[in-house]
Amino acid sequence: MQEEIRRRNLSRLLRHVHLAGPVSRAVLGERMGLNRSTIGALTAELAAAGLVGEEAPTDTGRAGRPSLLVRPGSTRVYVLAFDVAVDWLVAARVGLGGTILERRWAPRPRAGADLERVVDVLAGFGRRLHETAPAGSVCVGVGASYCGMIRPGDGMVRFGPDMGWVDQAFGAELSRLLGLGLPVRVGNEAHLGALAEQQRGAGVGFQNLIYLHGDVGVGGGIIVGDKLLDGDGGYGCELGHMVVNPYDGRPCGCGSQGCLEAEVGERALLDAARRPAGLAGRDALRAVVDDADRGDPVARAALHHIGDWLGIGVANLINLFNPGIVVFGGMLRDVYPGTAQQVRARIARHVLPVAKERVRLRIAALGDDSTLVGAAELGFSALLADPLGALKRAAARATAGFPPG
Amino acid sequence: MQEEIRRRNLSRLLRHVHLAGPVSRAVLGERMGLNRSTIGALTAELAAAGLVGEEAPTDTGRAGRPSLLVRPGSTRVYVLAFDVAVDWLVAARVGLGGTILERRWAPRPRAGADLERVVDVLAGFGRRLHETAPAGSVCVGVGASYCGMIRPGDGMVRFGPDMGWVDQAFGAELSRLLGLGLPVRVGNEAHLGALAEQQRGAGVGFQNLIYLHGDVGVGGGIIVGDKLLDGDGGYGCELGHMVVNPYDGRPCGCGSQGCLEAEVGERALLDAARRPAGLAGRDALRAVVDDADRGDPVARAALHHIGDWLGIGVANLINLFNPGIVVFGGMLRDVYPGTAQQVRARIARHVLPVAKERVRLRIAALGDDSTLVGAAELGFSALLADPLGALKRAAARATAGFPPG
Repeated sequence: MQEEIRRRNLSRLLRHVHLAGPVSRAVLGERMGLNRSTIGALTAELAAAGLVGEEAPTDTGRAGRPSLLVRPGSTRVYVLAFDVAVDWLVAARVGLGGTILERRWAPRPRAGADLERVVDVLAGFGRRLHETAPAGSVCVGVGASYCGMIRPGDGMVRFGPDMGWVDQAFGAELSRLLGLGLPVRVGNEAHLGALAEQQRGAGVGFQNLIYLHGDVGVGGGIIVGDKLLDGDGGYGCELGHMVVNPYDGRPCGCGSQGCLEAEVGERALLDAARRPAGLAGRDALRAVVDDADRGDPVARAALHHIGDWLGIGVANLINLFNPGIVVFGGMLRDVYPGTAQQVRARIARHVLPVAKERVRLRIAALGDDSTLVGAAELGFSALLADPLGALKRAAARATAGFPPG
Repeated sequence: MQEEIRRRNLSRLLRHVHLAGPVSRAVLGERMGLNRSTIGALTAELAAAGLVGEEAPTDTGRAGRPSLLVRPGSTRVYVLAFDVAVDWLVAARVGLGGTILERRWAPRPRAGADLERVVDVLAGFGRRLHETAPAGSVCVGVGASYCGMIRPGDGMVRFGPDMGWVDQAFGAELSRLLGLGLPVRVGNEAHLGALAEQQRGAGVGFQNLIYLHGDVGVGGGIIVGDKLLDGDGGYGCELGHMVVNPYDGRPCGCGSQGCLEAEVGERALLDAARRPAGLAGRDALRAVVDDADRGDPVARAALHHIGDWLGIGVANLINLFNPGIVVFGGMLRDVYPGTAQQVRARIARHVLPVAKERVRLRIAALGDDSTLVGAAELGFSALLADPLGALKRAAARATAGFPPG
């Protein structure tokens, strides 16, 4: 019982420092409802394990002995985080506190990326990140973000329309090829982006948040009462496939028509801006946004058109979820500012008065890293649940040696 | 500490019996993880207070001494439940187990119902229900269902478009006029209907449920991970104001256009069935459904048309929420069966494959009482949280006498 309470308190303290650190012992005590000596003992245990460090605060300008700042330990542990996006593959070594320590990146051709090829590239990145990690540091978990619908238990990609994947054992294969003896926890990119923005980005402090993640299409992560909406199978939040234009709508990659992502996704914007059919990708989108900024009427009309549909979608979501904040991520970070006027006009027109009293609209604060940072959090979950136990197990694995790639 | 554990166990046991009773001591022990003697002691306390009774089961056909069945006490306590719907006002005395013991009902004219008039009628019903309650029974709470957006804390009607109410202190006024010294807990009708259907109706056992409540418009109650979605201010779930037809849509009572409720609500169906503009109400709707059942082509086409829009709305909700079940209540109970084919066709077309693997579509099992039963649950919440404490307080109030009406 005592042991269980101690483990839970170590978990809570490390989680606080990981998400909000550096933070003073005094503040930790307040937030956790524990007295000074208990905080001191817990901090000492985590510090001895290398999971936190302590430092004197810079001059606070107040009298009295200042409380020591507890910060995430920077070198003892890390996770591997992967991001399989439509246009790129990313792998990173991420430290406590969510710090991206090192990353590797490769563009991904849009056509013909099968499971084997993707996993091979990612595992290669992962091995090199592992090899270049400082001596004495250990890998405590692996998380991955994928642009499709994921079965929560085992990281199976149930449906990845952008890559044409159906029921591909992505998590299991990546885990096998990495050979670290660690499971790879996989999440949908927009789900992970939503969690990351709520924990470290534009949505800190919001219990009800909607995150729209644009790439080729539009994914969604929706947080309801501080928890990610997952639904019965973990496949909720598919706001990009909300039909907004059922009769005149553009065809959607999902096989349907008039979905939000068909009306506001990459192809819709490029078509509205009369770009050649062969053009695609983030740079092409940014060129439209830049042209609009310079006053080009075709580009401005395109953003206006997209903004109108985006506004209808966002208005629907506000009526359904009464959120505190709506966050635009992925390519919508670039697109949203030029569409904000239309989005706000649609909200004014369609959202019930009391539901729009307080809602904020923001772009993702973590930039293109929302999804990667979210994947890292999946990797950290075992360590945060049981800091010393997980570290011990990870150290034992590390001593056993990293198998050849 | 012991006292706190005992109170919590009494609360859990009474809640089990209230929702699932009659239930055997053996099953209660299993569900609550408590041994036979603890269950016996808790049951005895609640039985002494009149909150539960015990009975021998009918012959189980199995050997051995059968476990006694614990049932909700039928006469000691009740709540008053009110339902302010578009077309009627209802009040009921409801006993433990959710049994409606007595009810009073009045039609409500659609125009010109101000707060004072509505509360006056309801309070009159409430007083008569109280007067005709058996001697020795006490009122332990009051709940009300209202067809509009409710501020959770104080029962303020923020927006009641069907009655033209904005910021009307419904809960406080009804409480004052009842004069029972009890607060009136108020909820949105569709929220309460969703909870009631999940607790006692079509949605028992489902953690993710969408309830569509049709009257003039379409309200929604959405349960995510076993909890009602409320959002930042308690104003979420407004699925009737999801825009599905933004450019050619019918005008909506909310001031917008093309909302789901504008396309599938009472007026839309009656117009599609070419009924006179003056006609309204549930009987007029049922006449269309009856005509369609008899093969009338105009009525069938009307249901087909409504079903198409309803299907688009339901498909969107399934993509967003990945629910286990969608429940149709209010007038949609009558309308849904004749539209089911279109609804299923839209689901097949628009819902992502993995999100439709398991979803069920059902009509409300509690009939028109879903909202009233949900309101009664609000009234029971204090008793269920602390059975003996709440009963003691209620008995003290009853002894002090019911004030003149």
